[in-house]
Amino acid sequence: MHTDLVAALDIGGTKIAGALVDGHGRILLRAQRPTPAKEDGGTVMRAVEDVIGELAVSPLWSRAAALGIGSAGPVDASAGTVSPVNVPGWRGYPLVERASEAAGGLPVELIGDGVAITAAEHWQGAARGHDNALCMVVSTGVGGGLVLNGQLHAGPTGNAGHIGHISVDLDGDLCPCGSRGCVERIASGPNIARRALEGGWRPGPDGDTSAAAVAEAARAGDPVAVASFERAAQALAAGIAATATLVEIDIAVIGGGVGKAGDVLFAPLRRALADYATLSFVRRLTVAPALMGTDAGLVGAAAAALTRRPRTAGARV
Amino acid sequence: MHTDLVAALDIGGTKIAGALVDGHGRILLRAQRPTPAKEDGGTVMRAVEDVIGELAVSPLWSRAAALGIGSAGPVDASAGTVSPVNVPGWRGYPLVERASEAAGGLPVELIGDGVAITAAEHWQGAARGHDNALCMVVSTGVGGGLVLNGQLHAGPTGNAGHIGHISVDLDGDLCPCGSRGCVERIASGPNIARRALEGGWRPGPDGDTSAAAVAEAARAGDPVAVASFERAAQALAAGIAATATLVEIDIAVIGGGVGKAGDVLFAPLRRALADYATLSFVRRLTVAPALMGTDAGLVGAAAAALTRRPRTAGARV
Repeated sequence: MHTDLVAALDIGGTKIAGALVDGHGRILLRAQRPTPAKEDGGTVMRAVEDVIGELAVSPLWSRAAALGIGSAGPVDASAGTVSPVNVPGWRGYPLVERASEAAGGLPVELIGDGVAITAAEHWQGAARGHDNALCMVVSTGVGGGLVLNGQLHAGPTGNAGHIGHISVDLDGDLCPCGSRGCVERIASGPNIARRALEGGWRPGPDGDTSAAAVAEAARAGDPVAVASFERAAQALAAGIAATATLVEIDIAVIGGGVGKAGDVLFAPLRRALADYATLSFVRRLTVAPALMGTDAGLVGAAAAALTRRPRTAGARV
Repeated sequence: MHTDLVAALDIGGTKIAGALVDGHGRILLRAQRPTPAKEDGGTVMRAVEDVIGELAVSPLWSRAAALGIGSAGPVDASAGTVSPVNVPGWRGYPLVERASEAAGGLPVELIGDGVAITAAEHWQGAARGHDNALCMVVSTGVGGGLVLNGQLHAGPTGNAGHIGHISVDLDGDLCPCGSRGCVERIASGPNIARRALEGGWRPGPDGDTSAAAVAEAARAGDPVAVASFERAAQALAAGIAATATLVEIDIAVIGGGVGKAGDVLFAPLRRALADYATLSFVRRLTVAPALMGTDAGLVGAAAAALTRRPRTAGARV
């Protein structure tokens, strides 16, 4: 039997999605379970096994050559373990070994979820054709991943590209990670909303205090809402410029809920980038919205699994 | 004739050093000229040609397979040009083409000086055996370079690892590069001295207001001098932690004049790193002083040239 497919898992704090994916990134079969995030580690693993089991009963399963897993972080690809912040039952949990057992011994490629989304954007999205790229998710948190020299740079533990937790304000507010002035502490959706509320912005009759509501107010001209997005854009620009100055990327792709705010985010972001990306070799840096949708994690996990073996014709990962 | 050597050039604002180097990093022959930094581009190039010419009259020259150049930046390896800040006569200067002509058509490998020093530390110095490392020079400026996945990561233009110009204080003081709160703006020798003077530190009878004099005062317990080094250490820690969080390095090597300050720098640096390097995968990060001496630039340029071709036995670059 020709093994021209891979299995993929996208493990988050809310749901565990699985798929069988072909060498063109097409999803041929899906399975999904809610993440029992508050339960013990064994219960969470049984949900993963259920997803794999549902895929494995398909006649397509025998064509799967490997299993790619993108997981909420931190992960440790070198140890094969995961410790997702929002899944307390998993701390140093041996996901690679258990998932491989559940998948009948398939080889497993484990990466962080930011790295997975980067793999997807590089394969089929906004970073396609770019040999050096940063891809970010700006939503409840701020995550990311890197493509360097045309290849995914996951790092030894699979966590590289963690731009949300670099400090751009060394004397700034404490971040839950323990550091100060992290990009996420300034630019995440909840921090955009918090800053707007602290500045005197008030939600409409629906009481919606999300970053999306602040974005709508900013589009309507509310100066406090505008200022909160400008501050987020400034932190993102400093972080993106730092990344470009360190590793020479030429594009930063931004997805996630905050990334969908459009010009409210991207206009001040482009202005701020001009302030922070000043050296000759980073001045051509551009930013672009992400193109992949909610399947980005699955497609990226599949991309990581595909690069484990000789590539399927047509696959360009 | 067996081509088991490479030629190397280390081009700075003060001197142009050249050498013939073997596959073990041993310097077999040297030549040097002062950099006519204030003169026109052609005059600067003639000094380079003189250095190459002095090497080329040696019978060893015929054994050189390539020419490695580490130059003050910014460089543009993809265009083959250099624009050293302190050599105004060279702006987009076609150094690769001219140097190759002067060297009888040898292939040329151009990298920035921070990248060159990194190549040297990785080959034979404090980063030896580390597959993921940041090497820095902290002196008049702050430069650096990266080793990722066991290989020098120069980036498409040869400038990667420019840690001196990442912002760790997004609202901070303007930097000559145009950005704000850059690591160099806080941690370079002149800024350590400036901050100490502004805080009320006064030099001894010799009138020495260098960072080395501030380091001596700090060792003697002067609180203003200590505080100035602590602030530099904080900025370096934020920058090093950002680098580790982005690309997963496990060691940061620090050289240059400020790097020689010893515990006055390294003790607060290690404390501050614990504050900023908080995620699980960066907590094992260590810092170490550089081991290579003044030949680091030459040895690193040689290392870059050696990796252009099948490696000489014994060369581990």
